[in-house]
Amino acid sequence: VNSAQKNYEQLHHISRHARILMGISSLLDWDQETHMPPSGAGIRAMQLETLAGIIHEERTSKKFANALSKLIDIKTGHIVDKHMTAPKIAALREWRRDYIRETALPRRFVEELAKLSSLAIVAWRDAKQHNSYYRFAPFLDKIVTMCRKKADFIGYKEHPYDALLDQYEHDITTKDVSKLFSALRKSIVELLKKISQAKQEDDGFLFGKFSQDKQLEFGKKLLLDMGYDMAKGRLDLSAHPFSSSAHPTDSRVTTRIHPTSLVSNIFVILHEGGHALYEMGLPTESYGSPLGESISLGMHESQSRWWETRIGQSKPFWHYYLPLLKKQFKGKLDHVSLDSFYKAINKVEPSFIRVEADEVTYTLHVILRFELERSLIEGNLSVKEIPDAWNAKMKELLGITPKNNAEGCLQDIHWSMGAFGYFPTYALGNLYASHLFLAFAKDHPDWQQRVAAGELAFIREWLSQAVYQHGRRYSSKELLKKVTGKAFSADAFIHYLTNKYSEIITKP
Amino acid sequence: VNSAQKNYEQLHHISRHARILMGISSLLDWDQETHMPPSGAGIRAMQLETLAGIIHEERTSKKFANALSKLIDIKTGHIVDKHMTAPKIAALREWRRDYIRETALPRRFVEELAKLSSLAIVAWRDAKQHNSYYRFAPFLDKIVTMCRKKADFIGYKEHPYDALLDQYEHDITTKDVSKLFSALRKSIVELLKKISQAKQEDDGFLFGKFSQDKQLEFGKKLLLDMGYDMAKGRLDLSAHPFSSSAHPTDSRVTTRIHPTSLVSNIFVILHEGGHALYEMGLPTESYGSPLGESISLGMHESQSRWWETRIGQSKPFWHYYLPLLKKQFKGKLDHVSLDSFYKAINKVEPSFIRVEADEVTYTLHVILRFELERSLIEGNLSVKEIPDAWNAKMKELLGITPKNNAEGCLQDIHWSMGAFGYFPTYALGNLYASHLFLAFAKDHPDWQQRVAAGELAFIREWLSQAVYQHGRRYSSKELLKKVTGKAFSADAFIHYLTNKYSEIITKP
Repeated sequence: VNSAQKNYEQLHHISRHARILMGISSLLDWDQETHMPPSGAGIRAMQLETLAGIIHEERTSKKFANALSKLIDIKTGHIVDKHMTAPKIAALREWRRDYIRETALPRRFVEELAKLSSLAIVAWRDAKQHNSYYRFAPFLDKIVTMCRKKADFIGYKEHPYDALLDQYEHDITTKDVSKLFSALRKSIVELLKKISQAKQEDDGFLFGKFSQDKQLEFGKKLLLDMGYDMAKGRLDLSAHPFSSSAHPTDSRVTTRIHPTSLVSNIFVILHEGGHALYEMGLPTESYGSPLGESISLGMHESQSRWWETRIGQSKPFWHYYLPLLKKQFKGKLDHVSLDSFYKAINKVEPSFIRVEADEVTYTLHVILRFELERSLIEGNLSVKEIPDAWNAKMKELLGITPKNNAEGCLQDIHWSMGAFGYFPTYALGNLYASHLFLAFAKDHPDWQQRVAAGELAFIREWLSQAVYQHGRRYSSKELLKKVTGKAFSADAFIHYLTNKYSEIITKP
Repeated sequence: VNSAQKNYEQLHHISRHARILMGISSLLDWDQETHMPPSGAGIRAMQLETLAGIIHEERTSKKFANALSKLIDIKTGHIVDKHMTAPKIAALREWRRDYIRETALPRRFVEELAKLSSLAIVAWRDAKQHNSYYRFAPFLDKIVTMCRKKADFIGYKEHPYDALLDQYEHDITTKDVSKLFSALRKSIVELLKKISQAKQEDDGFLFGKFSQDKQLEFGKKLLLDMGYDMAKGRLDLSAHPFSSSAHPTDSRVTTRIHPTSLVSNIFVILHEGGHALYEMGLPTESYGSPLGESISLGMHESQSRWWETRIGQSKPFWHYYLPLLKKQFKGKLDHVSLDSFYKAINKVEPSFIRVEADEVTYTLHVILRFELERSLIEGNLSVKEIPDAWNAKMKELLGITPKNNAEGCLQDIHWSMGAFGYFPTYALGNLYASHLFLAFAKDHPDWQQRVAAGELAFIREWLSQAVYQHGRRYSSKELLKKVTGKAFSADAFIHYLTNKYSEIITKP
């Protein structure tokens, strides 16, 4: 073992220690959303604050900086050892990027934000439940102030929102997102217009009374079919579904069951399962280094949306699963044809809740949040103006007005978590998934036949090769280019949507 | 605020930080026993190891030592400020004791033991399930070696086991325990002889088929009746029931349901509930200082055994609850009188499982473990000899022989946790409970009538005043003396047992 190798291992060792603590922090978050007694919220906030402080300290410690400096020049990014392998060089660059961003934030600030957001989540849940925006507003106000401060700490060239975006998707600026979103908005509004003029399927059979236990059972089966390993995870219920991973061997998902909606839980399972498969598929030997981590939130979302929309809302998928669903809910879907079912689950209709939105209007929900966040961070919108601004944007983009804040600006958990800059990654996820799908469909021209026959394992296998195994070896854009041979753009997504819906609305 | 006050607050602040981390560690233990996916065991061990290292570092840090030294001389125990209040003086002495014990152990040792025991718990569970001692033996061997090393690190005057005992009950030596246990053994064996010559109640009606859901529901009701606050805790299932507290506002309990035993779950609930009430009753403003902590494991166990045996196995308790139990399990107990029920749940019979043992034979189970542990730590017994030694002792003390190791030496989780020195506190708990009960019965001469009328709140209120509120202000012996006016001895317990069973066996 040469000294560069030894130094690399030492760096990995130090970094792994912090990563383990981050996993503990995830578990505390998971427990908070699933099992924590309500009065435990105060001590939980202190626990998360304490861990955040220690993690920050470790990630910005002299010990870490020294270990890193032996391998890469922190100022210039110059790699010290010329014989270092390409994956390790990539890891060092990512470690350096993380270090620079982390050191920009004072420890006290990190602790305070962790504590505030843990308490704000509780306040948000309460506010949403009681449809009372003003129970949440004071917390949100503090969070916006801290996020603006955070942007200042991190620094930015053009727009403070760039600094926040960079936390979740580092290759992209506010300008890029604005440009991408205005193109998307144009195509989507056009498509939406066409769709609204066509006659759509009556999706009434998707609603009614569906046993919670049977729904959960069906969801579990899907999760297993996708390749989710129950020995390395578990499925629980929570108000806002999420996936949470401490390690590839402990990656948990949650869902929620609407007793009157047949497919809501199914798409949640496919979505969260997609996230979890990514985490479970990361190389364990690289755990604690960038090569053992997911690339970005956008890429993570591409994995969840892949399973939820590209697979789960496809016709071949239901060719196989509809008969099973009919069996699970005897008497409920007896006369529903595959074609009707497929059209019903793909029905397009402006609605209030982002996570329940169809593929076409979904992006408009994201655009709404992005535009509000940008204004909040710029200081051109105040927290007390949010409900009105939300409703106005909703009207403008989707033509509808929420009847209350619970189904309006209080619907998402993200702001309570202090996760400003996060929402755009949801739209990017769709774009990335469709871009990646170009290569998948090329490698597996028979994918529709195989899925229709109930095969799913080959999909996970393909994603593992294309995405999971690399960790942060490549940036999102690099990976998309490498896998498909084509530079990333929104084209694949727009093309997919347009094609899919042209077929749906023109076929009688 | 004078400077001593400020220094005290600073010390409390540093100490609270470590306490918060210890609470996180408890939550990880809780999750491991209730919800963790099986393959998560490896990363969980690393998480516990990591936390143990950080906690140890904080509790032995220069920063902590400096803050402590400003208030108490670490070498001599001399209190610096003469005007310090008595509770604070007590806190400083306890902090100093903890510090001295903690600094005796090297960080690497603490981390290794935490990791080893997390893995050993998994191996133990597997070994127990498959009744294969040899799956567990290699882990136990390492644990015994580490515990002997631990005793050497901590130091002792007479016996290495003294050092281990001191972790859980600091006022007592191996010699004291041996003496106490030989007196107990004598009285119990005598009593057992008398009982075995009498005709006991046929307890057949306690066994049969009892719906798990209904059992759990009844258990929950009892827990609430005791005064357990579900907003500050929760009830789950686990293989080995336990209570786990991160803070008075997050104190959880678990139980397990035997589908064929009616009362097993009930006594588990009363037991774990008793532990949890102690934790929930500790003063939150002192959280993170000795005044916010329980005195010792013995005192903790006095609280669980108080509810399980002194209340839950009393006749007044069942005067109120038997009708409710009959209602819960309609048709199962219709012709069972209070007297029969009371005698049945107090039936004395040598049996294999400690946690299922009656009040009379229970202590013999503890004596067995104490004697084996003492030999193991002395080096006079090897791990591979345990099954035979266990069975021989079982024969000697209880006159029976387990048919396999699962119901013999593999039954308890403690050794896998590295908790040598822990078992004697179970017997002490019974003794403490009975000693405390002298004062309770004096303060509440009508306790039997009140309990028979379904009142329980006054019991918790009394315990809160007598025990909970003081934290570690007094040692076990000091508290027992203070509350009852009498020096601690085994007399109250022996007297109680003898009286109770004389009545049971002589009444026709």
